[in-house]
Amino acid sequence: MAGDDINRGLEGVPVAATRLSSIDGETGELIIGGFELPELATNATYEETLYLLFHDQVPDSEELAAFRTDLAEQRSIGPAVHAVLQRAAEEEKPAMDALRMGAAAANLGHEDGEPDEDAKRVIAAFPTIVAAYWRYRQGNEPVAPDPDLGHAANYLYMLTGERPAEAAVRGLETYLNTVVDHGLNASTFTARVVVSTESDVVSAATAAVGTLKGPLHGGAPGPVLDMLQAVHDSGDPEGFVREKLDAGERLMGFGHRVYRVRDPRAAVLSAAAEQFYADGGDSDFFETVVEFEDVAVDLLDEHKPGRRLETNVEFYTAALLHGVGVPRDLFTATFGVARVGGWMAHCLEQLEDNRLIRPESKYVGERGRTWTPVEQR
Amino acid sequence: MAGDDINRGLEGVPVAATRLSSIDGETGELIIGGFELPELATNATYEETLYLLFHDQVPDSEELAAFRTDLAEQRSIGPAVHAVLQRAAEEEKPAMDALRMGAAAANLGHEDGEPDEDAKRVIAAFPTIVAAYWRYRQGNEPVAPDPDLGHAANYLYMLTGERPAEAAVRGLETYLNTVVDHGLNASTFTARVVVSTESDVVSAATAAVGTLKGPLHGGAPGPVLDMLQAVHDSGDPEGFVREKLDAGERLMGFGHRVYRVRDPRAAVLSAAAEQFYADGGDSDFFETVVEFEDVAVDLLDEHKPGRRLETNVEFYTAALLHGVGVPRDLFTATFGVARVGGWMAHCLEQLEDNRLIRPESKYVGERGRTWTPVEQR
Repeated sequence: MAGDDINRGLEGVPVAATRLSSIDGETGELIIGGFELPELATNATYEETLYLLFHDQVPDSEELAAFRTDLAEQRSIGPAVHAVLQRAAEEEKPAMDALRMGAAAANLGHEDGEPDEDAKRVIAAFPTIVAAYWRYRQGNEPVAPDPDLGHAANYLYMLTGERPAEAAVRGLETYLNTVVDHGLNASTFTARVVVSTESDVVSAATAAVGTLKGPLHGGAPGPVLDMLQAVHDSGDPEGFVREKLDAGERLMGFGHRVYRVRDPRAAVLSAAAEQFYADGGDSDFFETVVEFEDVAVDLLDEHKPGRRLETNVEFYTAALLHGVGVPRDLFTATFGVARVGGWMAHCLEQLEDNRLIRPESKYVGERGRTWTPVEQR
Repeated sequence: MAGDDINRGLEGVPVAATRLSSIDGETGELIIGGFELPELATNATYEETLYLLFHDQVPDSEELAAFRTDLAEQRSIGPAVHAVLQRAAEEEKPAMDALRMGAAAANLGHEDGEPDEDAKRVIAAFPTIVAAYWRYRQGNEPVAPDPDLGHAANYLYMLTGERPAEAAVRGLETYLNTVVDHGLNASTFTARVVVSTESDVVSAATAAVGTLKGPLHGGAPGPVLDMLQAVHDSGDPEGFVREKLDAGERLMGFGHRVYRVRDPRAAVLSAAAEQFYADGGDSDFFETVVEFEDVAVDLLDEHKPGRRLETNVEFYTAALLHGVGVPRDLFTATFGVARVGGWMAHCLEQLEDNRLIRPESKYVGERGRTWTPVEQR
């Protein structure tokens, strides 16, 4: 249907200048806020990363303490939002639907303010929304946020009702930092289009959640975990891979549209998972994961020489989030809990120097139709 | 900040081929589903227009009856959605916030199905969401939808609790048809980006509401009405315009980014308003509106020769919607009630032959930052 003059995917079309992140798909380099990904992701708390994205510098102790407090005080959500989340849980709607509903109502109970203030409130509310939905889903009462805990620790706490181990918190911090921003991906682009009309950041975050929900973007880390567990149960990674490839099936967790080499996020998440599992996780399971990666990369290369399919971000997302205790059904929503930081920073950047984003379409329909009343049709 | 190689507004970049609508800004021609706008807008019911957009042909009597019933049966919204809308009303959140919250929760109480079925449900639910919010806002109980009434008539009925006059219904049908689709405007584009990830139409509609909320897109028909009423009260349109222009102020309701001539929608809405007010509306008020347009166009031309600022869609939206009984605070939400038909049709068109929409950004930030722990900063 589309002609050659239509750029349906907008590939290669730069729409924004950004200081937030840079992707080099050829070399596998990802920069976030001026740092190479591993330098930032493995060292920072999520709050430090947020501050960096918002202010283009890391905070000093005082600034960080104030920023943490600011976020921690804005975590609660009101009773009407709880009613919707409870209903979504009862109907077993996907977590991303619940997050969309909760995000859409995130300004209830608050006066709308300046975009940067609203942005912090949205970020603060996301873990509370996801965790409340999950508690309802399990037939439990929600756990109120604990302002003494950091953003990552509090998320794990609200999921389980128990203080998380330090290793789990560090694993989750690294995950949140790793996927917080990634150029002008579809959800981030959506957020920028929304605020380009001078709409608000709550609307932008809600729109972005809906975009991230799509499997072509948010992916399928849940099914990757299912696969890893099936591989582990089989005890035969090589046999599993050969069977899939012989059947002509795609192997989940490998390959990425942008990266021609190993996704730099996979390396960071792999190291974080290794460290986490060494600190007392199910190390047998993790050994299988590592063995599976080695075997699969080799066999994929044998199967399709020259393609160089490497593990992508979903692969070690599944291993790491499973390890630190995030339920499988919340993997994509937890991606949202991380990425909302990037969405909000992009919104603020867009608003600094705004221009309405409004492309064109090419009409390929009929012309000159004339009306006939229905009784004469 | 942006370089020359960045297309920040995506102006003139065609991203989709569509059979839904065509805009010619130079000649002021708008085609919807193969019909010139006036031919369609003044003749069709909103249901006929929807059917046209969904099926690329107008329905026969049987098809129309089935389509009407299908829509009419899916208008209700559940108690959790009501709870959120009530809360939004109590907090006096804008109608577009309530519509965003209601849209986000529009799949509660329903199994998710095929996109075209979900799309109809979303369209059916929009007037119910807006009307329920409005009733709560006024301290009244919501009015349950009446399946015997058409889409437009039922919307007015749910707002007031009274059967609307035929002239009001016809006026509203014409409005809904007139603004149902308009190329790849920002909200429609957002909806297409959302489903391009293979997300769902509820997410797309929610995202589009958030985009339409922005004044650079959804405009400000409410303030236009305030202005028209102030002009009417003053009894001196010419004096009003001269005062504004002398003070260097912009005149609301004039000019459009795309149209270099009079917005074709303004002509259709103007004729519809004329007909409505002749049938028993406040004809004094409408006389002022017409006189104001004449005076303003002349004085604007005097003030900025060659610019040719004509009335845009907002101008007669304000006059017509006010006439038929839509409250001022619901003008933009009523725009959404109309445009959701276009959004949904665009989503279905996008999904017919999908491709992920993912542009690029250009990195303009720092590089090579190294981490210092917070206690050393």
